[in-house]
Amino acid sequence: MSRCYNFCAGPAALPEPVLEIARDDMLEWHGRGLSLMEMSHRSPEVVGVTEHAEQTLRELLGISADYAVLFLQGGASTQFAAVPLNLLGDKAGADYVNTGQWSKKAIAEGKRFGSVNVVASSEGSNFSTIPAQDSWQLDANAAYLHYTPNETIGGVEYFWTPQVEVPLVADMSSTILSRPINVADFGAIYAGAQKNIGPAGLTLVIVRRDLLGRASPHCPAMLDWKVAADNDSMYNTPPTFGIYLADLVFDWLKAQGGLAAMEATNRRKAQKLYSAIDDSAFYANPVELASRSLMNVPFTLADPALDKLFLQESEAAGLLNLKGHRSVGGMRASLYNAVGEDAVDALIAFMRDFEQRKG
Amino acid sequence: MSRCYNFCAGPAALPEPVLEIARDDMLEWHGRGLSLMEMSHRSPEVVGVTEHAEQTLRELLGISADYAVLFLQGGASTQFAAVPLNLLGDKAGADYVNTGQWSKKAIAEGKRFGSVNVVASSEGSNFSTIPAQDSWQLDANAAYLHYTPNETIGGVEYFWTPQVEVPLVADMSSTILSRPINVADFGAIYAGAQKNIGPAGLTLVIVRRDLLGRASPHCPAMLDWKVAADNDSMYNTPPTFGIYLADLVFDWLKAQGGLAAMEATNRRKAQKLYSAIDDSAFYANPVELASRSLMNVPFTLADPALDKLFLQESEAAGLLNLKGHRSVGGMRASLYNAVGEDAVDALIAFMRDFEQRKG
Repeated sequence: MSRCYNFCAGPAALPEPVLEIARDDMLEWHGRGLSLMEMSHRSPEVVGVTEHAEQTLRELLGISADYAVLFLQGGASTQFAAVPLNLLGDKAGADYVNTGQWSKKAIAEGKRFGSVNVVASSEGSNFSTIPAQDSWQLDANAAYLHYTPNETIGGVEYFWTPQVEVPLVADMSSTILSRPINVADFGAIYAGAQKNIGPAGLTLVIVRRDLLGRASPHCPAMLDWKVAADNDSMYNTPPTFGIYLADLVFDWLKAQGGLAAMEATNRRKAQKLYSAIDDSAFYANPVELASRSLMNVPFTLADPALDKLFLQESEAAGLLNLKGHRSVGGMRASLYNAVGEDAVDALIAFMRDFEQRKG
Repeated sequence: MSRCYNFCAGPAALPEPVLEIARDDMLEWHGRGLSLMEMSHRSPEVVGVTEHAEQTLRELLGISADYAVLFLQGGASTQFAAVPLNLLGDKAGADYVNTGQWSKKAIAEGKRFGSVNVVASSEGSNFSTIPAQDSWQLDANAAYLHYTPNETIGGVEYFWTPQVEVPLVADMSSTILSRPINVADFGAIYAGAQKNIGPAGLTLVIVRRDLLGRASPHCPAMLDWKVAADNDSMYNTPPTFGIYLADLVFDWLKAQGGLAAMEATNRRKAQKLYSAIDDSAFYANPVELASRSLMNVPFTLADPALDKLFLQESEAAGLLNLKGHRSVGGMRASLYNAVGEDAVDALIAFMRDFEQRKG
């Protein structure tokens, strides 16, 4: 088999040119006599790669010097604890919006460290909507407002930015780098790498510098953003291979034309797939039109008894990892940056053919 | 340049056959149409690799079913917090032995979560000794005793196991897999991967199952060993590439004959280098004979003004990363598993030649 189309929700597809460089560098990086993975994280080579990754990310996202960029470990799930540990300060609690499984996990973990006020929830609609902000019940004493701009399981995405007085905190794991954002709107942004950044095991945090230094005395040093910022993400040994791969992904994104170009491609990809679903009586997507995710497209078949055959045949056709999350059922196509328009075209062609034969 | 001899203290040299497999698998793993990094951590493929890694590690170290094996993130520095958060229970504090920079970091972090009783310290000898156990001032109410079997900077190593009534906790980052150990002597063992296991970004914890379930209510879920054990290290997305590479390293260790064979080789490598140092009036190692590390060999030149030239010439000769830690000065040769006996022979030959020309 050669490389297939990969619609995995995460860890997700990586750009093939990035993997080719990683392959060619594996035994020896830039004629240095060893792999980058075998170098000290304090070597000029690894420090150089890390600085270049940060610089390129700053260009891509337009991150000003008012923000620290941190390369951490532990995934978004570790940040679910790090956010309250770093930001509660002398406040008793914070505001959270509940729009899906990832929101719920952030809320559950947040409750270990303070009170959580759920300002709004779309659980009643089975997470197929985003509650409008005018319905939110904000707490005047909240330390921050946390939300999840994109939910991978429900397939809902915000196409607007909450307007609040307190620092806005976003788990951008599954949307970051898919389109331009205005970083200045946020107090802190965090993201696991394994969708649009790089391999699992790297976590990105972007935090406004004036919010650093408020960590609880019981915050583990490794979860304290100020410790990471003061040590240029090298308080201890960082995941150097992950940073190296992210650096290559950032270069690849620049070469694609940056985030405005990615947004155009990502909107076209998603639009094609949603249209194919909507134009069919056989496939369905339950999400309200205004909140349909560009990255994760869940869809069901009219007859769930055909799910297994759909998955078997799509895999045989080189369309991998289309099985939906068990809590939603059906299928899910994740369309992250490294999933090309050709992959979406192939998926739609397969879906039409399957419907014709079995629908 | 081709691959050189790499004496880096960490991230350290990896076995060349492991890197060759990783290179060949990079674009497509086992004919599956995608890289292992691009697969869901819950796919049969990644679960299979993870289970195989655990099984092979259990064989190598002789780990019984009474112990959980966890693949985590965050390095030993995260475990410095996780240890007290998981093990203090209703006790106020714990015992720690201070034999170097890594002990000190564990002690400093431990103090965030409870009282720390330093039972003994070798700081007075500039960390060139291991305090004998009969000198230790144990606390009868300690929750556990923490020690650092090998210190990478001072180059001291325990060749005996502390005998205590409380659970014994060891930061084995720089000694694990270098020789057999009796896991049953320990309550918990932890290790960053980037010396003898795999790439930076993976952390190994081996913990006796009866010690699980005591975590503080304020312990972040991602630092709670029971959460990791209950979820087979997949509470969230683990560092799949790191686990995959560790699995290959474990296979490689088995092919070398396992840990008894590694010990024989590692003792021979260290013995050769210490003999070359001791037989010379030009090189010196400050560590007491009984506690000289098999993994990290610091040494000084009679004239520190020659340090720079030594480093330049050794690098030109393909002997990389010999610069000592700034707190000790001079040189340091780290002789982890993937550093072959040929590398040590080449280093000794260079050292003799340098001494003859410049000594």
